[in-house]
Amino acid sequence: MVSTQPPSGFRDFLPEEALRRAQLIKLISETYESFGFLPIDSPAFESINVLEGSGGEENEKLIFKVLKRGEKFKSALQAKSDDENSYCDFGLRFDLTVPLSRMVAEYRGQIHFPWKVYHIASVWRAERAQKGRFREFTQCDVDIVGSKGGGAELEVIQAVSHAVARVGAKDFELKINDRRLLVSLAKHFGFADDQADRFAIILDKKDKIDTKDLKDEFSEILGKTVSAEIDGLLAGNFDLKAAEKLNPEIGTQLKSLIENLQKIELPLSNVSFDASLARGLGYYTGPVFELRHPSAGYSLGGGGRYDKLIGRFSKQEVPACGFSIGFDRLLMMLSESKKQSERTVFVPIFIEEQRSEVIKALSPLRAQGVNVDIYPDSAKLKNQFKYASDRGFRWVLIMGDEELKSKVYKLKDFISGEERPIAYDRLISDLKPLLLS
Amino acid sequence: MVSTQPPSGFRDFLPEEALRRAQLIKLISETYESFGFLPIDSPAFESINVLEGSGGEENEKLIFKVLKRGEKFKSALQAKSDDENSYCDFGLRFDLTVPLSRMVAEYRGQIHFPWKVYHIASVWRAERAQKGRFREFTQCDVDIVGSKGGGAELEVIQAVSHAVARVGAKDFELKINDRRLLVSLAKHFGFADDQADRFAIILDKKDKIDTKDLKDEFSEILGKTVSAEIDGLLAGNFDLKAAEKLNPEIGTQLKSLIENLQKIELPLSNVSFDASLARGLGYYTGPVFELRHPSAGYSLGGGGRYDKLIGRFSKQEVPACGFSIGFDRLLMMLSESKKQSERTVFVPIFIEEQRSEVIKALSPLRAQGVNVDIYPDSAKLKNQFKYASDRGFRWVLIMGDEELKSKVYKLKDFISGEERPIAYDRLISDLKPLLLS
Repeated sequence: MVSTQPPSGFRDFLPEEALRRAQLIKLISETYESFGFLPIDSPAFESINVLEGSGGEENEKLIFKVLKRGEKFKSALQAKSDDENSYCDFGLRFDLTVPLSRMVAEYRGQIHFPWKVYHIASVWRAERAQKGRFREFTQCDVDIVGSKGGGAELEVIQAVSHAVARVGAKDFELKINDRRLLVSLAKHFGFADDQADRFAIILDKKDKIDTKDLKDEFSEILGKTVSAEIDGLLAGNFDLKAAEKLNPEIGTQLKSLIENLQKIELPLSNVSFDASLARGLGYYTGPVFELRHPSAGYSLGGGGRYDKLIGRFSKQEVPACGFSIGFDRLLMMLSESKKQSERTVFVPIFIEEQRSEVIKALSPLRAQGVNVDIYPDSAKLKNQFKYASDRGFRWVLIMGDEELKSKVYKLKDFISGEERPIAYDRLISDLKPLLLS
Repeated sequence: MVSTQPPSGFRDFLPEEALRRAQLIKLISETYESFGFLPIDSPAFESINVLEGSGGEENEKLIFKVLKRGEKFKSALQAKSDDENSYCDFGLRFDLTVPLSRMVAEYRGQIHFPWKVYHIASVWRAERAQKGRFREFTQCDVDIVGSKGGGAELEVIQAVSHAVARVGAKDFELKINDRRLLVSLAKHFGFADDQADRFAIILDKKDKIDTKDLKDEFSEILGKTVSAEIDGLLAGNFDLKAAEKLNPEIGTQLKSLIENLQKIELPLSNVSFDASLARGLGYYTGPVFELRHPSAGYSLGGGGRYDKLIGRFSKQEVPACGFSIGFDRLLMMLSESKKQSERTVFVPIFIEEQRSEVIKALSPLRAQGVNVDIYPDSAKLKNQFKYASDRGFRWVLIMGDEELKSKVYKLKDFISGEERPIAYDRLISDLKPLLLS
C-alpha cells in the first residue's frame, strides 16, 4: 500500500491549523494594504536561468528542478549529458525577490514608480529535512521598487513591524546593518577586495555554526589568526560610533535610519545596530535588517536594499528595497487563536423530510456571514449531537417541527445549558455578536 | 540577457488582478465557512506513487515531475534507466481530490466523520499551453468525507452555487448525472463490462472534439456504427424518464436529488439531468455534477461522489463526495470589481523633516483598517501628486505644517475638487465610510 505521509520536509494542515494560518495571513495582508501596498503574484515555476545566478548563493543550490517532458526528456537521456540542467527546464522559486525582480523588468512600461507591492506565497527549497526546517514554506514579502532610499526602508520596516504585532507577536526586535559597511569592515580586516562577499557569507553562518569554526574559516582566507577586532565584532562590541569612524557616510546614514525608526514608535521591543548582521544573499547593496526574537536562535524575517538585482533582468537598473517575514517561523512564536467551533452555530435536523425546508431557512443567515453547520446525512439525533460535541460547538439552534411552524426557534448554549427563544427576524442580529470573534 | 516572461502557460499577476483574485478567494472561503466547511491544506508535492494510479486518467499523463537531487540523480543516470520515474521522486499535485484522499487515510484516527472541509489552492498540469488553458491554476474544492449520500450531495452543490453567486456570477447552471447510470448505458449500448470506463472517458471529450469523431471512437470499440439511441444521447434526448426505465434505482435517486435541489432554491438559472455528462475521472462512483454557463463551451466546475478513492490509500473504504470550482475559468466570466484606489487615502509629505511625525500620526488609522498610502522618498509635491493621480486615488488628506499643529486636517476629493476640514479625532469615523467598499 502507498505511504500516506506527506513527502519528508512537507506538511499537511488539518482544519484547526489551516484556519489559523489563513486568519493570520489575512491580518498580515490587511496590514500591508493599510500602508498602501498592493498584492502581486507570480508562478511557482521559473525558468532555471532566471533562478540561477541571481545572487541567491546558498539558496541556488537548493532549487527543486522540474523534469522535461516527453521527447525532450528522451533526447536529453540519449545525449547522455552529465549536466543536470539538460534534463530539466523549470525550477520552483526559492524566494519571492527574484520573481519580483523579473516581473519589474518585464512590466516596466506599465508600472508607475515607486511601486509598493506585497507578495505572500509558498517557496520551495531542497533542504535536508529537519525539525523546524521545511521544504515548502510561506514568505510574506513587502517591497518598494524605484525608490532610492531612506523613506522606503522606513516604510517596509514599519509595515512588517505592524504586521508582526497585529498577529499578536510580542518582544520582537530589529537588527540593522549596511552591506557597504561590511565591505569596509572586510577591507579593514585585511580581506582582499573580491573577498568581501565571502566575508559576508561566512559571517551569515553565525547563528548556525560555532564561533570557533567561524573564526577558522576567516583565518583560512586571511592566512593568519583572526584579530582582536574580529573577536570584538563577533562579540557585539562594534558599535555605531565605531561604524561612523570606519565609514563616515554609511555610518551617518545608518544612525539617521535608526533615529527615524525610533521616532515613529514601532511596535517592537528594540531597534539596534548590529555590525555582525550579514544577510548572506549577495544581491543586497545597502541597509540590511533582520527580525529577531530573544527566544529563537534564528532570524524570523529579513530584508534590505537590492539596487542591482533588477538590472540583471533589464537593461536599466531600478533601485529597490524589501522585507520578508518567514511566516512558518513566526507562527511557532505565537499562542493559540480562537477556535472556529466558537464561531459556528449547529442546527440538528429533527425530521429528515424537513431537511430542504431547514436548509432553505438558513440561507439568509449564511449569506450574512453567520456560519451554520448541519449534519449532512440522515442520522439519529444522538449521532448529530455527538458530531456537534466532537467539533466543540457551543451554540445549537433548534428548528424542529413546532419551531418551523411558529418561526420562533430555540437557541441552546452548550456551556451554560441555558435555552432561549429567538424569532426568525432576530436570528441574524442576535446570533452575530455571539459568534464572531 | 535572461528572458523575463513567465514560463509558457504560467502567469504573473500585477496588483489590480492579484487584488481581485484575493478578494474573490476571500468571498468563496467565507461562503464555504458559512456552510460549516473548514479549510485544509496539503503540500504542492506528492510522491509519484500517490499521484499515479489514482484514477486521474488523463490528468496523470500531465504530472510535472521533480528531479532527484545530488547523488540520487547521478546514480539514476549511471543506471541508464529508460523509466522516467527513476530520475524523479516527487510530482506536483494535478488536483486536490487525490491529496485529500491521502490525508483522510493518514489522519483517520484524528478525524470526526462526517468531515466537512474545503481546500483552495494551486494545481499544476503539463498541458500544451494555449489560450485559456494554464499549467498552474486554482481550484476551490469542498468535500464531505464519511457520508454515504443524499444530504452530502445537496450540501456541496449548495455551497458551490452560493459561492459562485457571491462573487457575482450570473446565469450559471448545473448538470447532473450518475456514474452508475453511465455503466447501465454502456451495457445497454453493447459495450463489454470492462469497457464502461472507456465509454465514460470518450463521452467526456464531448466538449473538445467533433460529434463525428466521438461516434467514430465509439464505433471502433463496438465494432459497428453507433445506434440511433447513442445519437439521441449525444443530442440530449435521453431524459429522466428514460433513465428511470433503464435503471429504476439510480433513476429514482437522481430524480429525488434534483427535486431537493429545486426545493432549496439555489442561486442558479437551471438545474437539470444530462445523461451525456461523464466527468472523465475514473474515481467517481455515484452522482456527478458540472457547473456550466451558456456562453462557455467548457465546464466551470465539477464534482461527484468517489466512494472508492480513499480505500486506495487505506485498508478501509470511506465514502466521500466533493465539488470543485475552476477559479480561473470562473474569473473570466465575471465583470470588473471595485478598484483598490477607491479604498485608499493618499497623504502627501509637505516637509521631508516631518515624515516621521506624519507616519506616526497615521498609525492609528492604519491599525483601524483605513488604507493610507504615502510617497516613500523625499520628492517634490508635484511628483507626489503625479504618483497619486497615476494610481487613481480619489481622496487626499492634507497634513501640512499648519494642519499638524492645529490637528485639523483637510480632506480633498479629487473627483469633485471639494475640500473640507476634518479633525484628528474624527479621521477614522469620517474616512472609513468614504473608503470601504
